[in-house]
Amino acid sequence: MKNKKAYTALELAKFIEGDLTGDPERIISGVSSVENPVENTVVFAENDKFLKKAEKLNADLVITKKEVEAKLDLIKVANPRLAYAKISSLFSKIPFPEKGKAKSSQIADSVQIEENVFIGENTVISENVRLGAGVKIAAGVYVGENVKIGENTLIYPNTVIEKDSIIGDRVIIHSGSVIGADGFGYVQNGKKQEKIAQLGSVLIEDEVEIGANTTIDRGTTKATVIGKGTKIDNLVQIGHNVKIGENCLIVAQVGIAGSVQVEDNVTVAGQAGIVDHKSVAEDSIIAAKSLVTKDLKSGEFYSGNPAQKHSQELRKQAAVRKTPKLIKKVKKLENEINKIKKEMDR
Amino acid sequence: MKNKKAYTALELAKFIEGDLTGDPERIISGVSSVENPVENTVVFAENDKFLKKAEKLNADLVITKKEVEAKLDLIKVANPRLAYAKISSLFSKIPFPEKGKAKSSQIADSVQIEENVFIGENTVISENVRLGAGVKIAAGVYVGENVKIGENTLIYPNTVIEKDSIIGDRVIIHSGSVIGADGFGYVQNGKKQEKIAQLGSVLIEDEVEIGANTTIDRGTTKATVIGKGTKIDNLVQIGHNVKIGENCLIVAQVGIAGSVQVEDNVTVAGQAGIVDHKSVAEDSIIAAKSLVTKDLKSGEFYSGNPAQKHSQELRKQAAVRKTPKLIKKVKKLENEINKIKKEMDR
Amino acid sequence: MKNKKAYTALELAKFIEGDLTGDPERIISGVSSVENPVENTVVFAENDKFLKKAEKLNADLVITKKEVEAKLDLIKVANPRLAYAKISSLFSKIPFPEKGKAKSSQIADSVQIEENVFIGENTVISENVRLGAGVKIAAGVYVGENVKIGENTLIYPNTVIEKDSIIGDRVIIHSGSVIGADGFGYVQNGKKQEKIAQLGSVLIEDEVEIGANTTIDRGTTKATVIGKGTKIDNLVQIGHNVKIGENCLIVAQVGIAGSVQVEDNVTVAGQAGIVDHKSVAEDSIIAAKSLVTKDLKSGEFYSGNPAQKHSQELRKQAAVRKTPKLIKKVKKLENEINKIKKEMDR
Repeated sequence: MKNKKAYTALELAKFIEGDLTGDPERIISGVSSVENPVENTVVFAENDKFLKKAEKLNADLVITKKEVEAKLDLIKVANPRLAYAKISSLFSKIPFPEKGKAKSSQIADSVQIEENVFIGENTVISENVRLGAGVKIAAGVYVGENVKIGENTLIYPNTVIEKDSIIGDRVIIHSGSVIGADGFGYVQNGKKQEKIAQLGSVLIEDEVEIGANTTIDRGTTKATVIGKGTKIDNLVQIGHNVKIGENCLIVAQVGIAGSVQVEDNVTVAGQAGIVDHKSVAEDSIIAAKSLVTKDLKSGEFYSGNPAQKHSQELRKQAAVRKTPKLIKKVKKLENEINKIKKEMDR
Repeated sequence: MKNKKAYTALELAKFIEGDLTGDPERIISGVSSVENPVENTVVFAENDKFLKKAEKLNADLVITKKEVEAKLDLIKVANPRLAYAKISSLFSKIPFPEKGKAKSSQIADSVQIEENVFIGENTVISENVRLGAGVKIAAGVYVGENVKIGENTLIYPNTVIEKDSIIGDRVIIHSGSVIGADGFGYVQNGKKQEKIAQLGSVLIEDEVEIGANTTIDRGTTKATVIGKGTKIDNLVQIGHNVKIGENCLIVAQVGIAGSVQVEDNVTVAGQAGIVDHKSVAEDSIIAAKSLVTKDLKSGEFYSGNPAQKHSQELRKQAAVRKTPKLIKKVKKLENEINKIKKEMDR
Repeated sequence: MKNKKAYTALELAKFIEGDLTGDPERIISGVSSVENPVENTVVFAENDKFLKKAEKLNADLVITKKEVEAKLDLIKVANPRLAYAKISSLFSKIPFPEKGKAKSSQIADSVQIEENVFIGENTVISENVRLGAGVKIAAGVYVGENVKIGENTLIYPNTVIEKDSIIGDRVIIHSGSVIGADGFGYVQNGKKQEKIAQLGSVLIEDEVEIGANTTIDRGTTKATVIGKGTKIDNLVQIGHNVKIGENCLIVAQVGIAGSVQVEDNVTVAGQAGIVDHKSVAEDSIIAAKSLVTKDLKSGEFYSGNPAQKHSQELRKQAAVRKTPKLIKKVKKLENEINKIKKEMDR
């Protein structure tokens, strides 16, 4: 469906394949929160608690699950959260013109530009860059030599994409991120640190999203790779030679050290770290602020520093909480045994 | 008092309502450290230890507390630290011209600009932006559509203020920060992550200061809010839909996940994290590197991962330190009991 | 040796003072990984395991240690890792032209520029800046008033160097870093936070390297100092008045709070933190994610939160792991003592 300013309730219901109860002609011009529903918008109520809130606040239209009833206009779907994501995209407007090159942009002669590309103010596109159809690059971006950017990729202001980086289709890179800075590689020579030249590159596969002020370093000789569909939040550090699989979620301020391998569908929660050269197998979840210090098997939930299976970490934490009491118990046992010993000596 | 290159000791004493002992005509042209006092400057000695240092190093003029004596020129005040802050501001010179628009700046036609505004080189101001009187925007800044910036706000180089952000009066935003990037919101659809469009905005209230390379994400449907007078350090992550109260201190590299509520006068120390949807009540202090995993009550000092009352955390840590010894004690008790049991069997 | 596109094996062997076995005329045009050797490149095999890999994959030329044998062309050296660093530098090509000023750069009249300086597109150089011979500054950089930059220093795109900063010779500053933003200094005045003006500067000594999106704050009255040869990774925070010694390694996402003193040859691993006003003596190593809360002595390996000697931290962790079992043991002892007491009462 094409993005418009407003839709009828029926149009929205059809778009998300939901069952509409209520006025099919109601005009909806946006999305709002169930805690503060705005007139002529649709809200999202995943469960009964939120649905009650919507009822109380008299929301105009509610996306909800199949089995519920309410005195409101509803669109019932199998997966309300997913339906909400789809509807939200209808009202989203990317902050880029359709096409054109700002006068103040600096585009090298050898650059190849496909159709419907936009290049913003003061943006620098270096030699031998290729920009696929529909690419939009905001203001103040630097794109180094030989960079290839796939179709319909969006690059927000003041981002830096250093030389030789390969960026896929439908990638989104948010403001201030730096793709392809040198990895942190030195050899100690006496007390001095000798730099190891960072000769590799960065490969960002299709449909990756990268948050603001995130840094992804180039490989030492090969590429640092971010797999298809992986989403990376703000202020994340990805070291050189790292390989991240497909459809991972890497939350804000995570640090992934050099040469780490992360397989598909892994979630790394905020401020967690992974020590260099370790691997994390597919479908794992790593809790916030954990530190991964050894290879992790697939499909488990890990937490702690050092990270271990979450069930073990919880057991450890429970035991630690009991330690002050345990110290008292042991003191008491010592006294009792001393008493018994005295008793027996008599 | 107007900023000048130099002041007499008497002028300074009057400005901070202090009692001057010593030469009222002494010329003071700056501030220096008590550990390395520079000629013709004023230093700050909060306590006797620092005052002795100032005496030993023969400082020219010392701001100190009411009850002390020293063979130096002194300005005695009730709150020396506050007096020092005021004096330091006299010698501060912001790195912005009074007004003007750099030739290379790109200002859209519909922009409203009040008096005494400065716009630096290569800075981009998009459609429908409003810049209040006295706003100074440095070089290389990107200001998106519909942004409103209040009076006397300062924006340092290479900052990005994305569309629809509302910035108050006397706000300071340091270099490289990104205000209003998309929040990190997805819905899993099979293995794939579907993006939830981030349709909200960011609201920065008056007198907020934001450090360098910090990121504050736009809300999902409403605004992410930073309350009046709150100060945020460098490399901080503030997720979507977060609401931070007034006069908080958020120290470097803190991460505040989506939809967190922080009330007034809260201090979050460096590298701490707050898990999504949690709340922190007013006047709380959260220690460095803590992880807040549940709602916190007002007026307490919290620490640890998971964060708990600091007194409890200290008790836990003390107990943990005793655990190796405890293990030995229990081993000894086991042996003694075995001995007793043998004894009794005889 | 001058950088060329390719070298003979003999040229490389001479350059790193190694013993060549094999074809001296073999043409080598790059470096690749032992796990994936590319034709006409040299790889690096520090130990027998890697050498076997190189043999199996039939690498063209291998840098390795003195005592080994293999059916491959080898260059044997005393320190293969160091030799590799040197060779890698031969194939490194910095992404800057030799000299020139981009038309869109904005250079103030009073700027002093030595020979062979390059200034990139849209870069702003403010009044009274001095740029030493061979300095290269990429696109989109902001250099504030009175900044001095030594010889052959490289500054990558979209970096901000604020006023009064002093940068040494052969320094490298990666994209998006901010040098000299205000330190985080306030005094509480009732509930309000009064700003302490940050009047100092930043001093970066020779041969320092600073990663992408890192922030180094200016001192309050004096300079924040980064010592000669120290290497700093991405997204690191260095607070005001910090003094870091020579040849330190500060890994990604480390936070060093205000007024910390770090002596020479210290390694601070990823995501570690150092609390304000603490000192770390020379040759120390601080493990990833540690929090330094007191002064640390020289030459030790520290870890944990709070950081302590690593041997103690390991002992603590081992004890904590045993705590669940210890609780059971104590329970058992309590039962046994109760039995004994009953026995004795009879």
